[in-house]
Amino acid sequence: MQQPIAGIYCPHLVPLDERGQIHEEELRRYVDWLIASGVHGLYPNGSTGEFTRFTPEERRRIVRIVCDQAAGRVPVLAGAAEAHIGETLDACAEYAEYGARAVAIVSPFYYKLSAESVYAYFREIARQSPIDVTLYNIPMFASPIDVPTIRRLAEFERIVGIKDSSGDLAFMMRMMEAVKPVRPDFVFLTGWEALLLPMLLMGCDGGTHATSGVVPELTRKLYDLTRAGELEEARRLQFRLLELFDTMLYSADFPEGFRAAVELRGIRLGNSRQPLSDTQQVDRQQLSHVLQCILADFGVVEQPADGCPPRTQHASLTAERDQVGHVAQMVVEELRRRGVM
Amino acid sequence: MQQPIAGIYCPHLVPLDERGQIHEEELRRYVDWLIASGVHGLYPNGSTGEFTRFTPEERRRIVRIVCDQAAGRVPVLAGAAEAHIGETLDACAEYAEYGARAVAIVSPFYYKLSAESVYAYFREIARQSPIDVTLYNIPMFASPIDVPTIRRLAEFERIVGIKDSSGDLAFMMRMMEAVKPVRPDFVFLTGWEALLLPMLLMGCDGGTHATSGVVPELTRKLYDLTRAGELEEARRLQFRLLELFDTMLYSADFPEGFRAAVELRGIRLGNSRQPLSDTQQVDRQQLSHVLQCILADFGVVEQPADGCPPRTQHASLTAERDQVGHVAQMVVEELRRRGVM
Amino acid sequence: MQQPIAGIYCPHLVPLDERGQIHEEELRRYVDWLIASGVHGLYPNGSTGEFTRFTPEERRRIVRIVCDQAAGRVPVLAGAAEAHIGETLDACAEYAEYGARAVAIVSPFYYKLSAESVYAYFREIARQSPIDVTLYNIPMFASPIDVPTIRRLAEFERIVGIKDSSGDLAFMMRMMEAVKPVRPDFVFLTGWEALLLPMLLMGCDGGTHATSGVVPELTRKLYDLTRAGELEEARRLQFRLLELFDTMLYSADFPEGFRAAVELRGIRLGNSRQPLSDTQQVDRQQLSHVLQCILADFGVVEQPADGCPPRTQHASLTAERDQVGHVAQMVVEELRRRGVM
Amino acid sequence: MQQPIAGIYCPHLVPLDERGQIHEEELRRYVDWLIASGVHGLYPNGSTGEFTRFTPEERRRIVRIVCDQAAGRVPVLAGAAEAHIGETLDACAEYAEYGARAVAIVSPFYYKLSAESVYAYFREIARQSPIDVTLYNIPMFASPIDVPTIRRLAEFERIVGIKDSSGDLAFMMRMMEAVKPVRPDFVFLTGWEALLLPMLLMGCDGGTHATSGVVPELTRKLYDLTRAGELEEARRLQFRLLELFDTMLYSADFPEGFRAAVELRGIRLGNSRQPLSDTQQVDRQQLSHVLQCILADFGVVEQPADGCPPRTQHASLTAERDQVGHVAQMVVEELRRRGVM
Repeated sequence: MQQPIAGIYCPHLVPLDERGQIHEEELRRYVDWLIASGVHGLYPNGSTGEFTRFTPEERRRIVRIVCDQAAGRVPVLAGAAEAHIGETLDACAEYAEYGARAVAIVSPFYYKLSAESVYAYFREIARQSPIDVTLYNIPMFASPIDVPTIRRLAEFERIVGIKDSSGDLAFMMRMMEAVKPVRPDFVFLTGWEALLLPMLLMGCDGGTHATSGVVPELTRKLYDLTRAGELEEARRLQFRLLELFDTMLYSADFPEGFRAAVELRGIRLGNSRQPLSDTQQVDRQQLSHVLQCILADFGVVEQPADGCPPRTQHASLTAERDQVGHVAQMVVEELRRRGVM
Repeated sequence: MQQPIAGIYCPHLVPLDERGQIHEEELRRYVDWLIASGVHGLYPNGSTGEFTRFTPEERRRIVRIVCDQAAGRVPVLAGAAEAHIGETLDACAEYAEYGARAVAIVSPFYYKLSAESVYAYFREIARQSPIDVTLYNIPMFASPIDVPTIRRLAEFERIVGIKDSSGDLAFMMRMMEAVKPVRPDFVFLTGWEALLLPMLLMGCDGGTHATSGVVPELTRKLYDLTRAGELEEARRLQFRLLELFDTMLYSADFPEGFRAAVELRGIRLGNSRQPLSDTQQVDRQQLSHVLQCILADFGVVEQPADGCPPRTQHASLTAERDQVGHVAQMVVEELRRRGVM
Repeated sequence: MQQPIAGIYCPHLVPLDERGQIHEEELRRYVDWLIASGVHGLYPNGSTGEFTRFTPEERRRIVRIVCDQAAGRVPVLAGAAEAHIGETLDACAEYAEYGARAVAIVSPFYYKLSAESVYAYFREIARQSPIDVTLYNIPMFASPIDVPTIRRLAEFERIVGIKDSSGDLAFMMRMMEAVKPVRPDFVFLTGWEALLLPMLLMGCDGGTHATSGVVPELTRKLYDLTRAGELEEARRLQFRLLELFDTMLYSADFPEGFRAAVELRGIRLGNSRQPLSDTQQVDRQQLSHVLQCILADFGVVEQPADGCPPRTQHASLTAERDQVGHVAQMVVEELRRRGVM
Repeated sequence: MQQPIAGIYCPHLVPLDERGQIHEEELRRYVDWLIASGVHGLYPNGSTGEFTRFTPEERRRIVRIVCDQAAGRVPVLAGAAEAHIGETLDACAEYAEYGARAVAIVSPFYYKLSAESVYAYFREIARQSPIDVTLYNIPMFASPIDVPTIRRLAEFERIVGIKDSSGDLAFMMRMMEAVKPVRPDFVFLTGWEALLLPMLLMGCDGGTHATSGVVPELTRKLYDLTRAGELEEARRLQFRLLELFDTMLYSADFPEGFRAAVELRGIRLGNSRQPLSDTQQVDRQQLSHVLQCILADFGVVEQPADGCPPRTQHASLTAERDQVGHVAQMVVEELRRRGVM
């Protein structure tokens, strides 16, 4: 019998070496650490995994390494989107051989396609794939998959679930309402960890989130608390994870903030293939400091050597940013006044 | 001591007579029915109440009637936004005299204002209002109120809460996280009944929703179930209310779908001041039929004389609409083929 | 015979006195100045005129003053949108009596209405209005009017033209293509002065722009140059007006930048009814300085006493702003490094 | 001396054979036809060329074939965006060897990057590319390139121009205003043929448009008329091309409408790698009929055997679509009334 797709999946980053190539040894170490930390499954070649920044050969190699290292301890959901359906099906076949539990296929991107085109695309894959398929809806990056399209696609046995990263809980509920009557086993995973607790309460089977690559023991804990009905403690943890999530998500271009945080956990990810500007490199250092303080509060890393502001302060980073904005504005006004600018 | 602002508030529609004027008698009857049905408070001059379609004098009259009829049985949150701050403050003073518990003021609309302007606007009102003020954030219609702005405004004692209709649960959580440490008594109401249950679970004090003008006994029941921790029954009710909500919201221009539903409950609302096209009038009749079937399933109205489709069918109206689209497409193709179009 | 609606119309601001009330004397002086400066028509109660920030009585008074002062020297296009159709029709009747050439009615706002609703709304007005109506499409603030709706509305004789502020030249061309075959006399005015020259070249009859309240002699000149086929000079002027326009539009919430510029021309507009925050008040002073330099280059005002940067610098304000951003960022980093923030 | 980048460039589709593989012979025939029809340059691997639907090896092969077949008759602007900068630079080197005049590199896509990231990305390429680079801004599909970023990038000699497909003429003017003072030779090409004439009049050097793969003789003619100052004839042609463009763009998911039209010109493009649903296949046939009628009016193809509606009718396809919508709606209402739906 097949492993269920449920619980906490981790769409992990891929460590790179100094030449910008896949750092296989560190990737294997990262996989081991994630499994030891409690994730229920792994998700290579997701958006967090920067799948578009690798070549087709590299994407295959990543899945091969991850499946090999997981070695059946946890199921692997392998991102398999390639340039066109033929290539994608070839990847599906390979990933099945590597031992992946299922593939995850993002809706077509670059071109913004209509619902009919999205349907036609996944229908073709559903008919030919030798391995179970989960859909991946991420409307901020790719063509949206709407509720009627999900329902039509749920008629194909090969399509077994969806990961939705819209962050819209009502949309998730609409999908469940439309699909569950015709396909009770269909799996719903949320990609928006800001709402993991309420998503689970309303019926999601689990989540697959970038944050699980940073604090897998905590997202797992949140999952367990929720399943156990310990809602008060779960609620507190959800709010604290929201702060961490917002800091990682909004302080740098995705997934750079998550890369900074994973490195604080001791995984050497190396530099992204998307270069940073000079300003961004300075920002990155500051962000790393803030993240270390937040992670230290969770007790998962040490505080920085030069200390942290009192808890209440970085508890409301948004507010701080606001102040930063004000100071900057005042400085600029002053510079303008003096004619420097 | 003042009445608390919490629970289920109802932003109700305003009955009009045959000449399109306020139908005072029916409005009083509607108020009585809402109170009898369990709402914790009333909210005249909200978006559901079509406040922009009344003159300043009419808006005053509506609040006067509602406060008079409520007669202290439930608190009144009176929408007080007028053309400019001076006029708004005059309305605030009047509504205080009428006995309103607080006013609700929507963020400036038409012009899309920056956060600084939104702050300056509410600060002025906060400094001068003789009555408690709740902010009203509805980014689909008015200038958005962002998290840092909420936090800055929470420093004014006169500002006692916010109604947020963004439908974004993570945004609601960010507001609570930013404001509660400095202002533990600040009130958070959601205007997005699709998510009433999860909003309450994450810390909201209540909701103020158009749907409470249609099935007040059910939104009240959902509130009570959630507060009592009967989550399984609450969840089932929430899903069913979502279906009703979606049908009312997406089948006509807001708030026409809600008007159709309120009329099925026996309140004679009359025609909206926004006219319907010929096509829309036909649609309106169909919508009314669908709504009657949904409401009949809740047991709050009788089924239509000509019956309803089996439950499973209108349970997935979205799916049906999808089919409608397909049939229409086929017909159109055929007509094109014959050269009719 | 009726005056044609063509050329440069001015949607002007309304001077306020120290108590924030309409400053009639200054409004009359402004009207005289605009006519003397070459505008072909006046447009009270437009978006620039902050029509939503006045009461219904004030809006009527503004039109009465403007019509009275214009005294037939130029036609008046009076903004007549009120709370509902009945009120709007009353305003239409009054404005006809005041001697307005036509009314301009913005598409319904606050609620985002469907094309069918927009059609039903204008159809009702078209059937009953005692005065010619021009539609006003401004999708950034109000419900959009799409091409098929324009075409349907062009069947009503009372609807004589449209002002489009979308800034989308292709959209303007689509409207002309759809309407002109059935209604050759239909008038097309652009509300996007950034593109006045190309709009005229592609077939527009004129423009009605906020910038014409600031430099009416220059928008008129651009119109005349374009009509005379002196495209090279027109092109140069268009680029320079673009710089002025961008500075007024993007450096403050609309229409505050235009207010600052009009005041530099010697019209005392007073403070807006929308208050400024402390930061905004400082920004406003800086903006005024920059605007004075740009206007001085046109030769329409004196340079500020403390001089201006060399022409090339403020020629690319966007670029400057970019530098400002960089400096601010560096300062902020430094402050953060020192733990000040 | 290098060939100038100006005039009409064609971002062409790639013919596929029955197995969905590149049809080299037909591609060479298409290149010959485009050159014979008057294009000033070729643009393989653009958005029209569906570059994301080919593998890295296929993209290289396409450029090799096109450069070889062009054989210096017209310059080639080769789309060179690959998975990451290293791969992109390898492609640049190869395309230089093949004899491409320059490469065109789209802004990073999938992830929506900030201006700083977009700058850092192109800076890296500018520093290392062995061949001239044109930027490609297409905000509907990829991270936007804003005006300050363009200006900063224009400091690199290797970056010689930009293709902008935003369709926003004012944005194009802002770019020219910011860049030309520091880089008078910088090339501005528009990717929005709906506005080719006004773009050229305001200073663009040319265009590179999907429509040039369909009616190259007509876009070339429009370019020549505009350059010759024959504005009246140019204007008429621009309006007619707008109708063709709208039909191709809005009647199917891009670039399917263009594929249908190119096939009518006698190029056998084969099926796209993005499959069509059953409904879309029917739509495609209808679209082909409409396109044949429009192209027949230009005199570039024969009318369909079963004739065309009178000119006025398909002259306003938008209007027709409107009617289609109405008929469909009526039919649906009828079906609903009968309880079929």
